[in-house]
Amino acid sequence: MNKIEGGVTVAQGFKAAGIYAGIKKKKKDMALIYSTVPAVSAGTFTTNLVKAAPVLWDLKLIKERETAQAVVLNSGVANACTGEEGEKNNYKMALAVANALNIPVETVLTASTGVIGQQMPIKVIEEGSKILADSLEDSLIGGLLAAEAIMTTDTYAKECAVTFQIGDTTVTLGGMAKGSGMIHPNMATMLGVVTTDLAITKELLQEALSADVKDSFNMVSVDRDTSTNDSLILLANGQAGNPVITEKNEDYLTFCKALHFVTTELAKKMAADGEGANKLFECIVYGAKDKEQAVSLSKSIITSNLVKTAICGNDANWGRILCAMGYAGVEFDPYKVDLFIESSAGKLKLVEDGMATAYDEEFATKILSQKEVRASADIKMGNYSATAWGCDLTYDYIKINGDYRS
Amino acid sequence: MNKIEGGVTVAQGFKAAGIYAGIKKKKKDMALIYSTVPAVSAGTFTTNLVKAAPVLWDLKLIKERETAQAVVLNSGVANACTGEEGEKNNYKMALAVANALNIPVETVLTASTGVIGQQMPIKVIEEGSKILADSLEDSLIGGLLAAEAIMTTDTYAKECAVTFQIGDTTVTLGGMAKGSGMIHPNMATMLGVVTTDLAITKELLQEALSADVKDSFNMVSVDRDTSTNDSLILLANGQAGNPVITEKNEDYLTFCKALHFVTTELAKKMAADGEGANKLFECIVYGAKDKEQAVSLSKSIITSNLVKTAICGNDANWGRILCAMGYAGVEFDPYKVDLFIESSAGKLKLVEDGMATAYDEEFATKILSQKEVRASADIKMGNYSATAWGCDLTYDYIKINGDYRS
Repeated sequence: MNKIEGGVTVAQGFKAAGIYAGIKKKKKDMALIYSTVPAVSAGTFTTNLVKAAPVLWDLKLIKERETAQAVVLNSGVANACTGEEGEKNNYKMALAVANALNIPVETVLTASTGVIGQQMPIKVIEEGSKILADSLEDSLIGGLLAAEAIMTTDTYAKECAVTFQIGDTTVTLGGMAKGSGMIHPNMATMLGVVTTDLAITKELLQEALSADVKDSFNMVSVDRDTSTNDSLILLANGQAGNPVITEKNEDYLTFCKALHFVTTELAKKMAADGEGANKLFECIVYGAKDKEQAVSLSKSIITSNLVKTAICGNDANWGRILCAMGYAGVEFDPYKVDLFIESSAGKLKLVEDGMATAYDEEFATKILSQKEVRASADIKMGNYSATAWGCDLTYDYIKINGDYRS
Repeated sequence: MNKIEGGVTVAQGFKAAGIYAGIKKKKKDMALIYSTVPAVSAGTFTTNLVKAAPVLWDLKLIKERETAQAVVLNSGVANACTGEEGEKNNYKMALAVANALNIPVETVLTASTGVIGQQMPIKVIEEGSKILADSLEDSLIGGLLAAEAIMTTDTYAKECAVTFQIGDTTVTLGGMAKGSGMIHPNMATMLGVVTTDLAITKELLQEALSADVKDSFNMVSVDRDTSTNDSLILLANGQAGNPVITEKNEDYLTFCKALHFVTTELAKKMAADGEGANKLFECIVYGAKDKEQAVSLSKSIITSNLVKTAICGNDANWGRILCAMGYAGVEFDPYKVDLFIESSAGKLKLVEDGMATAYDEEFATKILSQKEVRASADIKMGNYSATAWGCDLTYDYIKINGDYRS
């Protein structure tokens, strides 16, 4: 597997575009991804009871249809809590794209992100759809523009891509995603699209994606708020020319590994660019008796406001980490826990068997002052582990969300 | 029932003191509450798996013994994650008080709050215990000093007291509590002590307290972090002279009502004085099909960081409220929800049947700009309701917790 530049346009037969349509005040606000041939599709979506219109649309299409050919996305308006009018507008958005590309409306997936409860400015979006279709290109720029157009409070575009070998065939896989608030994916995630020219059956594609998100996007939390719009879409158009993957053989595992690399990279970028965040906060819990225990503990740590503010302040206040583990709802012995912090500045054991070591506070602060910080806890019960990603909680989170709509 | 001035010293036979012993840098840091006669005792404590030494001590004493006579509390050090040495220090603190008051050590309950993981400065605490015993007084001042001495990041002391009639007897009940971070009580709460001169059996006292916290302290959240030290202790010394309450008759209900008034007032003060908070945010969910549903929804709303920052910014961003309801994990129909905001400035319906009303944004901002703000949601499924209390999430929360230990 090789990491390469780019995002959703690197796989053969995929084009993309990102434009300013006029939904937002100044920034790009619509993106389109197009496969020149029908692609088998898979998706995972929010578990929030309140589901946005595009989520309902995609759920239906992905369930009922083998393939899709385009994904249109907009930022600025979430099209959630918008009732029947919202569903009609979502259909109109898909239809405008379908007409511009001369493909059936049922092959156009949709995704929206932005303010909840406002109706879509549908005329603007219909106009934008035509421009998008005319702007499609298979270059790296096309992919980047699309990644930029779905940003809301994100500070940079999130892309990742790899190539990998299936037999003699080189397969390419790339994706994009956006954060960066209302991020606490549960079963699915924020907005993300991953494209690949791999040939694979729809069943296996969905199975690979569903398994993957558990260890990638679902392990990210910026603010514990599971959004109404979380969507992750995976398209595979077969243009690489490999023999179609139809069973869970070694090729399937190779694909899963590549997929996981890309989704994990995107997930980490999402965490690091959490609203107001100064740094990526990674947390590994190991020595767990099963996977669920490790997941519960690591997520409890990265979602604790008190831990997040301590990380913001470069303060090795490990008691807050043990406290967050204590209310995670799983059993363990606090007096068996070892706790470490680590970054490019070094590694330090803060806690041994639940009690403070004689660690150097100054060194601890130096470790925590870096852009990527890791806390790891060994609970000495078994051989399972889990990694979760979050970020620090800062003044800017309050600033961004205290007047998001203004 | 009459609301009166004061806290833990208003009931007959109770004395209190609060002093600066030297645990913290400048502020008062130790408090003592003493009943001149043994009092039946009840308590509820944190559900965090990581339990502080004083919590373990109190759990044992309250389970094994009918009565207690004193509660010694300190702020500055939590005595949590401190192992055997922490348990020994906790015992020494209780013993110092017992010796100074000439009562058995098993009648001295303890409570600590502050930084997790540091050992107690036990010499300072033993010295302080003697001074505390000498400083006891049954005046309102004694109660206030005790309430002040348990403050950490609280900005004001929290007291509440009432009198009520049991037959011809006037009974007095008063309490104190402290917040204001790591506040997400679960089964019990922060530190709180309530005293009453009521005569009642231990069994009924505990039953009343356990039932009460579900609707008072357990409905408060500042930051979703359930502390390692949450303790609420209730002492009833019988000095009012009423016939002992031994069954759930009308007198018992009168007592429960008085208790609930005091605990709810203290809980609301705790929420309003949440770390960095500018305002009290109350949330009522009604029309629920059962109590659990109403509790889940109201707590999900008051704990959402995005809702809390919107409240901070006086922004009627109701989509975040519906989103928080959507991930609460209970079933309801989003398109049947009516949503209101209310304060001293007026009341406004923001959402009807899940969709925005044509409300006046300016008026909404005015409503949200007050010191006490209420959001209420009608989900139109039944007749149950629940009220939860929280606060806004502000810059100061980050400031306080980014460098709490320094």
